[in-house]
This record gives sequence, C-alpha cells and structure tokens, in this order.
Amino acid sequence: MTTILGIDPGLTRLGVGVIKQGAGRTISLVHVEVFTTSPDSDISERLGSHSRSIEGILERFSPDVVALERVFAQHNLRTVMGTAQVSGVALALAHARGIPVSLRTPSEVKAAVTGYGRAGKNQVGSMVQAILGLDSIPQPADAADALAIAITEAWRGVGLPKGNSSADTPALKAWREAEAAAKRPRLQK
Amino acid sequence: MTTILGIDPGLTRLGVGVIKQGAGRTISLVHVEVFTTSPDSDISERLGSHSRSIEGILERFSPDVVALERVFAQHNLRTVMGTAQVSGVALALAHARGIPVSLRTPSEVKAAVTGYGRAGKNQVGSMVQAILGLDSIPQPADAADALAIAITEAWRGVGLPKGNSSADTPALKAWREAEAAAKRPRLQK
Repeated sequence: MTTILGIDPGLTRLGVGVIKQGAGRTISLVHVEVFTTSPDSDISERLGSHSRSIEGILERFSPDVVALERVFAQHNLRTVMGTAQVSGVALALAHARGIPVSLRTPSEVKAAVTGYGRAGKNQVGSMVQAILGLDSIPQPADAADALAIAITEAWRGVGLPKGNSSADTPALKAWREAEAAAKRPRLQK
Repeated sequence: MTTILGIDPGLTRLGVGVIKQGAGRTISLVHVEVFTTSPDSDISERLGSHSRSIEGILERFSPDVVALERVFAQHNLRTVMGTAQVSGVALALAHARGIPVSLRTPSEVKAAVTGYGRAGKNQVGSMVQAILGLDSIPQPADAADALAIAITEAWRGVGLPKGNSSADTPALKAWREAEAAAKRPRLQK
C-alpha cells in the first residue's frame, strides 16, 4: 500500500487530499480537507498557518509521496505569488521529512482523471467522485483538485501500455499528449 | 539594540544580511552571507536547503525583525516563481518563531539607501558599503541587497521629519515618494 498526499496550493484555500493505492490502479480515499486563511491577515501569518496545517497532515498520514500542482508564472497574476509561496512551504516541509515530491501540471491532472487535458472543474470533480466511489463531488473545488492530483500520481506509477498507440482509448491519448507536453522546456524544473 | 535580518530571496542565490541598530540611525554589520543552490537540483531539495539555511540564521542571530523584499508577479518571469517560493519559506519560518516580518519594495529600499528609487545595483552597493563602513562593496549583489533591505527597515523605525517638506533633502523626497507608492493598492498584502 502506498499513501499519496495531493496538494492544491493556494493562500486563501489550500486543498489537501490523501489516498491509498493498493495493487494496480486500486485507490481509496483516506482524507480530504481544505485549509483557509483570511485575506485580512498578514502574509506571514497566512503562510505560518498553512505551514502548521501541512505539517499536521504529514505527521498524521506519513505519505510515501507528495504530489503538488506545478505553478506557472503565466497564470492568474492576482493569486500566483501566494500560490507559489504556499507551494514553496509545502516543498520545503516534504523535503525536511525526506518525502519525495512530484510536480504535476494542471493539464496532466485533467488528462489523467478525465481523459481530456482541458477538462472543466465539474468534469474533474465528477471523475474524482466516480474514481473514489464517493457520494458526492468533494467541495470546494480545491478539495477535488487535491484528490485529482493524488490520483494522477497514483496512476502515473503504473505507466502507459507500450506499443500500438492507435489502439489507445481517448483517455490514454490525452494522457500521452499531456505527458509529452510536460516534458517540454518550462520555466521551472 | 535591535537586530534586523534582511533577506533578498532567490532560488539560485539567497542573500541574508544581519545588522544591529543602536540609538537613532546608528547601525553596524553583524553578518552577511549568500546561500546558493544548483539549478540542476530538484526544486524541493533547493527549497529544503534554503529552509535549513534560514533556520540556521534565525537560530544563530535571533533577529527582532525580519525584512524581506516584496516579490511582484510582473518581474522577471523566469525567476519570479522560485523567488516567491523562497520568500514563502522565509515568511513561514519567521512566523513560526514569532518574529515580525516587514515587506519592502525594491524602490523603497533604493530610495532609503541611495535617495533615488531607481538607483542601480552599483549605487546601492556603494551606499551599503559607506553606511556600514565596510572596506569594499559586499559581493555578490544579493549580499549588498540583503543588507540594503535591513538598513531600510532600521531607518523606517526612525520615521521621517514632519512639517516643511520643501526643506527635504533629495534622499528624503525620494523616500517619501517611495513610501507613498508603497501604500498604493498592490497584488499582495
């Protein structure tokens, strides 16, 4: 059994999702939570709060791997700096515990769970619900996104079927495309 | 005596400068150092390394306040994400020790130490050398910048002379302008 922590970093809402992966693609929900901080608090208080929350999750669930959404500077400029700061805190905390970290692009995550690299929030949420056998879509979207990142990490380990790619399902095709895109040069390793 | 830690955040080079402030504007150098990480290392290793370095500095010098360069999303897109991640780590670590944090814009810092909000690296370095009575300009630029941020924080506490602003020196004029600019709405608190 492998325990995977998915993190959707953000200053106002920080999503964390923990899943367990058994043989093959069998995965199940362990925990999902969204930590919030107020835009009225100062930045060091907000980051300090998220730092304690992430440490609590690492302590409680001892994940074997942490998967994190990769942050791009081109994204929403209003929120990207806070998102990068939270991701920095998460990466440093995971490293301090010797836990390997994997970065996933949004399109990799969408392709992995929905079969389509440009899927909307609702599609991602519905697929997370179906894959984990939940009664409803995890709310808010940050909760579903954190679980989607963890699911992507779980499935990546299995690898893609080799050989005749003309036999790919649409999901596998989208996945291959997202993987290829993720290998192209980018702003940050 | 107040101990001030100035931090110039960056992934490849992280500058830290520690100064002591006595009565009035009397300040002296305590320590300056630049921590580096290799672009070939993965991001969690780089942030983990900087996290340990910052913790070491906080432990060794017990600053009363941490001053940090404010990061803007509009700046160099190639480096801004890493800079934001390092600043996030520094902010969370300072908060965990209950140390107040102050964010300073680059133009505030330049105006404080050189009297001109658009001063170049060399001017900042020369003024840092003169203010602290050093034999040479601290190298690399990240070292001088970290000290300039700490000096700005030291002088901010003294406040500006009230009243007849027509009697302002060019340095005070630039400082007032930078302060006013810093109060305008911005991307991040």
